[in-house]
Parts: sequence; structure tokens; C-alpha cells
Amino acid sequence: MAGQDVIFIGNKPPMSYVLAIITSFSSGSLREVVLKARGAAILTAVDVEEITRTRFIKDLKVKNVVLGTAEMPPREGETKSRMISTIEIALSRA
Amino acid sequence: MAGQDVIFIGNKPPMSYVLAIITSFSSGSLREVVLKARGAAILTAVDVEEITRTRFIKDLKVKNVVLGTAEMPPREGETKSRMISTIEIALSRA
Repeated sequence: MAGQDVIFIGNKPPMSYVLAIITSFSSGSLREVVLKARGAAILTAVDVEEITRTRFIKDLKVKNVVLGTAEMPPREGETKSRMISTIEIALSRA
Repeated sequence: MAGQDVIFIGNKPPMSYVLAIITSFSSGSLREVVLKARGAAILTAVDVEEITRTRFIKDLKVKNVVLGTAEMPPREGETKSRMISTIEIALSRA
């Protein structure tokens, strides 16, 4: 069965997410890995995809990129919720 | 003739790029605006697209997103060139 793994990109070093992608695709029947990130981690997500594709998985393809907006609860001491940009990068092997 | 504008996203405030997009689409025959950014400006580019779509141009569509890598010259005092992630976001009106 074609599987899909979701990897949430946060503030760990990019290489830890690269390894997570490599591990996911090594597990056999997996067809797709989706990277999800918001705010500053969007840059990390793009870096992770590019490092993985250019250095480790040469046949990696970006199948789809979805941009969006999420509402975040107000910071402590503030009253207004904040809008934050999001990205989803769907990856597959050719 | 269907035109295409390219807007390079740098470190100005996001709203100045939002205005550039609105101005481009107001100019008549234009069919597509492409946002190009690299490095930290990738986050700005996504924010700019989301602000424009959610607040100003309701029928804005993300037609295509291309991720890539560019080689930057070494910083002063360094010898190795650096790799930097890039994004191109193609926008159109539905």
C-alpha cells in the first residue's frame, strides 16, 4: 500500500530532518513524505528539501507545494491572535 | 499579450512587496507575477503571497512553486562558496 509520512519541521538542526526523510524513504513501500512547517521554520523546510535532493536522494521530486496561513494564539500579555504563514512540501521518489 | 512581472523579494517590509503585486495586477493585461527570493527572504516571500491573497486579492492563485539552490560567493575572509535555498512563487488571478 502506498504510504505517506508527515515530518513536522521545527527548530532542530536541518540534518536531523534530512535523516528523518532518508529513513522514511528507506522503509520500503513509502511513496510520499510531506514536510510541514510554519513561520521561521519555513526556511528550514526548504533547506532540508534542497539538502536532501542535492546531496542524498538524487531522484527526489517536489510533487507539490502548498502555502497557507494559520492562526496562532496571542502571546502572553497580548490579546490579539497572530497570523502565521505555513508551507507543506510533498516529496516523492521518481 | 499575456505579460509576466518578476518581483525580487529582499529585506524591505512585506507590505512594500504586497503593493508591488497589487500594482502589477492593476496594470491591465498582466497574467502572472513571479516572486523570487533566496535565504531568509523565502519566509518574507511566503508572507507576502499570503497577505496579498487573504487580505487584498481574493482570487489570487498560487500557480506554481519552484524550490532551488543557488551558489553564493564566499563571505569576506572565507574561501568556500555557500549554498543558499531559493524559491519562486508564480501567482495568477483566477
